[in-house]
Amino acid sequence: MTVHVGILGASGYVGAELLRLCAGHPDLEAVYAAASSRVGVPVGQIHPHLAPAYPDLVFGSIDDLPPGLDLVFLALPHGGSQDVVPSMDAGVVVDLGADFRFADASVYETWYPGPHRAPHLLDNFVFGLVELFRDQLIDATAISVPGCYVTAAALTIAPLLKEGLASPQGIVVDAYSGVTGAGGEPKTETMFATVAESLTAYGLLDHRHTPEMEAALTAYVGEPVSLLFTPHLAPTNRGILATCYLRPVGDHPTEELLEVMAGAYKTEPFIEVSERIPATKATLGSNSVHMTVRRDLRTGWIMALGALDNLMKGAAGQAVQCANLALGLAETAGLTVTGVYP
Amino acid sequence: MTVHVGILGASGYVGAELLRLCAGHPDLEAVYAAASSRVGVPVGQIHPHLAPAYPDLVFGSIDDLPPGLDLVFLALPHGGSQDVVPSMDAGVVVDLGADFRFADASVYETWYPGPHRAPHLLDNFVFGLVELFRDQLIDATAISVPGCYVTAAALTIAPLLKEGLASPQGIVVDAYSGVTGAGGEPKTETMFATVAESLTAYGLLDHRHTPEMEAALTAYVGEPVSLLFTPHLAPTNRGILATCYLRPVGDHPTEELLEVMAGAYKTEPFIEVSERIPATKATLGSNSVHMTVRRDLRTGWIMALGALDNLMKGAAGQAVQCANLALGLAETAGLTVTGVYP
Amino acid sequence: MTVHVGILGASGYVGAELLRLCAGHPDLEAVYAAASSRVGVPVGQIHPHLAPAYPDLVFGSIDDLPPGLDLVFLALPHGGSQDVVPSMDAGVVVDLGADFRFADASVYETWYPGPHRAPHLLDNFVFGLVELFRDQLIDATAISVPGCYVTAAALTIAPLLKEGLASPQGIVVDAYSGVTGAGGEPKTETMFATVAESLTAYGLLDHRHTPEMEAALTAYVGEPVSLLFTPHLAPTNRGILATCYLRPVGDHPTEELLEVMAGAYKTEPFIEVSERIPATKATLGSNSVHMTVRRDLRTGWIMALGALDNLMKGAAGQAVQCANLALGLAETAGLTVTGVYP
Amino acid sequence: MTVHVGILGASGYVGAELLRLCAGHPDLEAVYAAASSRVGVPVGQIHPHLAPAYPDLVFGSIDDLPPGLDLVFLALPHGGSQDVVPSMDAGVVVDLGADFRFADASVYETWYPGPHRAPHLLDNFVFGLVELFRDQLIDATAISVPGCYVTAAALTIAPLLKEGLASPQGIVVDAYSGVTGAGGEPKTETMFATVAESLTAYGLLDHRHTPEMEAALTAYVGEPVSLLFTPHLAPTNRGILATCYLRPVGDHPTEELLEVMAGAYKTEPFIEVSERIPATKATLGSNSVHMTVRRDLRTGWIMALGALDNLMKGAAGQAVQCANLALGLAETAGLTVTGVYP
Repeated sequence: MTVHVGILGASGYVGAELLRLCAGHPDLEAVYAAASSRVGVPVGQIHPHLAPAYPDLVFGSIDDLPPGLDLVFLALPHGGSQDVVPSMDAGVVVDLGADFRFADASVYETWYPGPHRAPHLLDNFVFGLVELFRDQLIDATAISVPGCYVTAAALTIAPLLKEGLASPQGIVVDAYSGVTGAGGEPKTETMFATVAESLTAYGLLDHRHTPEMEAALTAYVGEPVSLLFTPHLAPTNRGILATCYLRPVGDHPTEELLEVMAGAYKTEPFIEVSERIPATKATLGSNSVHMTVRRDLRTGWIMALGALDNLMKGAAGQAVQCANLALGLAETAGLTVTGVYP
Repeated sequence: MTVHVGILGASGYVGAELLRLCAGHPDLEAVYAAASSRVGVPVGQIHPHLAPAYPDLVFGSIDDLPPGLDLVFLALPHGGSQDVVPSMDAGVVVDLGADFRFADASVYETWYPGPHRAPHLLDNFVFGLVELFRDQLIDATAISVPGCYVTAAALTIAPLLKEGLASPQGIVVDAYSGVTGAGGEPKTETMFATVAESLTAYGLLDHRHTPEMEAALTAYVGEPVSLLFTPHLAPTNRGILATCYLRPVGDHPTEELLEVMAGAYKTEPFIEVSERIPATKATLGSNSVHMTVRRDLRTGWIMALGALDNLMKGAAGQAVQCANLALGLAETAGLTVTGVYP
Repeated sequence: MTVHVGILGASGYVGAELLRLCAGHPDLEAVYAAASSRVGVPVGQIHPHLAPAYPDLVFGSIDDLPPGLDLVFLALPHGGSQDVVPSMDAGVVVDLGADFRFADASVYETWYPGPHRAPHLLDNFVFGLVELFRDQLIDATAISVPGCYVTAAALTIAPLLKEGLASPQGIVVDAYSGVTGAGGEPKTETMFATVAESLTAYGLLDHRHTPEMEAALTAYVGEPVSLLFTPHLAPTNRGILATCYLRPVGDHPTEELLEVMAGAYKTEPFIEVSERIPATKATLGSNSVHMTVRRDLRTGWIMALGALDNLMKGAAGQAVQCANLALGLAETAGLTVTGVYP
Repeated sequence: MTVHVGILGASGYVGAELLRLCAGHPDLEAVYAAASSRVGVPVGQIHPHLAPAYPDLVFGSIDDLPPGLDLVFLALPHGGSQDVVPSMDAGVVVDLGADFRFADASVYETWYPGPHRAPHLLDNFVFGLVELFRDQLIDATAISVPGCYVTAAALTIAPLLKEGLASPQGIVVDAYSGVTGAGGEPKTETMFATVAESLTAYGLLDHRHTPEMEAALTAYVGEPVSLLFTPHLAPTNRGILATCYLRPVGDHPTEELLEVMAGAYKTEPFIEVSERIPATKATLGSNSVHMTVRRDLRTGWIMALGALDNLMKGAAGQAVQCANLALGLAETAGLTVTGVYP
């Protein structure tokens, strides 16, 4: 089976990662790569790592996306998808931006510039956090892939809340990300000389992934979840490490918490639960999430840690996993569980 | 005035930093550098950055430390100082290890291998967290310099607790450190190929700086302080960023908290309070601590962030600052407030 | 077809990379992983990135290597293979160490501690620099994979020498490598704090890859090749960039040199020739070599630059490519041309 | 003595480094910092590492530079100085751009966009490569500081040429630089995600520092010097390592070459000659150059390696050293020989 794929926003980091994954996928074939600012430029000139795999592919414009493709990935800046999705003619649409992540347009409009220009389509989209909402993704035709921090934090916390072992209130998510999370547009904040040898925080109190984490967990757990999320920037290309602090319900020691976490994900191909402390580097280039949990008897806190590759399970990998489900392919097709280490 | 200085443990990172600071200090002159495993080796061979400043200095043994020096810094592995301090003949002793950080030997013995071999000397030592305990350091003859994480977290939190704006219980200290914090002994955990492109945590629940933070803050605030401390490792040479979460007492917004923090440190030469989010890189090579604070009205939390150079204000810089006070020199002599950036 | 594979030296970087490649290979199945110092330890404990792919694999000892495997990779310290190869019972042996790289034992003994303990087997081994010696590798049963620098430099230079466009004498190979080239044993030289923010050289004048480059090129070109090779260490995990300076024969401008280089490799799946200046990052995790060439009309020099991933085309990837040829599999099976970028 | 200093181009990396050096200098006081795009902005907001040292300094415009300052540093983009120097009223002018580096305007115009707008002033400027042209710098009133690569290569090569030990023709300078050498303007080439984990070259054959190296060495040696210079980019903030290849004149072994190099610089405070292979990290934040040399008896080449901090001895440090000489201050005032390591 050959699935013909179009990628919008193909000159960015996530777009490039989608092209890389398609090149190694047994069924997906990238036939169109749109990048408005690069029309006519060979893909391999902007992305030299893709030159051997795509010797002949040239960036096209979004407007010239061929109709009738089996699958279209949208890796556009936030706000970009709502302008093109309404008129899109494609079998399956997988959006990696924020436009269709919230069921309620008003939540989107609270955190992003609005008004939303395609609110009538929000109901069509399934939230592509696979391990929490797999049932809805099978045979879906419109999927909205969650933000990278959201995937890291929500997957790490979800089993503890679902099983009633921790309070859904008062949660702290303290997370560090590599620089690719900030996108490919050159700016002072993401220059090597700013980032290398530095550790800092950003988006204090109001990062846009906060409502997404709360909404995803609330939907999954069935009661209101509230958390404080603090993103930080570390000098790595990829990787998110989320260190989550929760108030316990009950007296469960570390061993029990580990069992619950492992049990919840025991059939999941991309979730690795272990007593080992996760390191982002073990997930580099893979679609895996590594996680663990601890109970601190001294202060009472539960700590859960999760690591992933923000461009893979945090974006392009998860998008392919969603597309596999929607198209009836093997869920793991074209995705690896093995990080490129060291 | 020339202060004759001996440094024990001079082949390590902190020892080298003490040598660097002495080379740029108007009054301190390093006349003896001991490194048991390097006796007879020129200092510049092990530390090429020091070769121009110390063309003739050769490592000696700890046993041959000349008597009667004005000042001796000990930068030995934990447990090393308690064996040499009892018989030491020196004007001022500044220990950078953990041996004399706790007033109570039993606390030391709970967290470090014991029994303590010089418990009778514990009362002689002043805890060298300058901004909190400056009065005790003037004219002190024995000083115990705090751990790097302790300095970062305690200085960032202290004013909020002292002024009663946050609860001394339920505090979370989530901190990331550069690799030099782990010392210079080669091991897999600190190899470039392990660390670069990775974010991970370590010492979950029981890192030894936990009781030190609690003891220092308890002593300063006057009531029991309890916290959960989680250290992480990031791919930088130097730098600690501590992100601290506290439960508020009262309704004070960010502006008030910033005023209290700035007011507490307004005459401090090495503390920079600002609304800016601190970045460790701005402190590189300096003795400065950069900090800020926020109140999250949505979830209630107070967040305080502090950044410093772990080898400077977190170790050697603080030690020199302590020595300056003890010897009646200008507190800032030989120390810079300016980071080497970028 | 399932090829049963054993890997000796599986706890090191190259061993881990071989395990990663086997996990993604359609035909190779790693059934035995030997690491003398780790016998009985789960593979995923030492290599967390491999934990999801090998949940049940445990390190065994070299002595217990099962007889009759279809394929054995040896990723042992130099000198280790010559002790085990003589008694090895396996279909195809692929050695990644230096033991069997030289046809003449005396060359080995000049550059490595000797005497060679299995000189009678040297003739059995084919030198696994695929693009230069492919014919000999088809159906080979004993293959010696070249060193990482050797592959980078020899492939970049070879077409220019072969076509008589540059002199085989007076060549300079100036190369920088990432840290994994130095292996996984902890030492001061490869600690993060030594390497990060530093650029340095090592092995001046007498690095062991020098005779290998000369021997490989001499064999390929058919006349004596002599060069000065200078390796440097840069703060990256992976990657070798070789900048090669040659004296021209004739008056060929850059365009002609590029044509010759591209022509020589036009059917090669893993060689990417372009006017673009190669960057190691574009090859990360792939088996590709990116290269270019320039003629400086002002000073006369020819410059040729080649980039690759030292653990892939420089070691494990090339080994798998060799094995594929020897076993009659598709040469590209289990190998990607696409780097993990950024 | 207080020297009142103005800095033009103070928002860039070199400008910031000049401010840092002035803050630690016993005699220089920065009283004016111009940055056209930042007029009215506090210096500490753009350069947080300078916030403690300059709590009240605000960027002004170049046009409002106060007349009559004792010393003005110009750290402007190439082409900027020739527009402001003609009308400048200052005691000593130290230009860190390329505008006044060539005695002959036509050389400038060959490599930079022209025509030169102040060619009549070229003769006023002394070339500030201190160790080669110190005599001319004493009491100079207009100084042009060399490029960073130029300082590294020329100082490393100069003694060998001057003493007639190597040919002034056919030289290869292969150098790697950290990212700050490319300046502070955000662009794709200097983003963290482009640079980290990558090694690449740029400016092949025609980098602008080529004619500067040739001119400086020709002037110093007294006969025409010709070389091929290849710059590379490595993932470090600072640091240049120049690996230089020269054809020998005579039969001098390594020991003799080292003696000549050491002898040439034996009274120089900032030059460290040693058999040790230099590493850029040992020079970080200092004004030192570390260098060594080798003779390869096998292939005949002489190799000389030099390392420095491109923002210090490669720019701001050298500028301060020049200013010290011009003003009759101690040459080393405000400059350290000791790197910040690790």
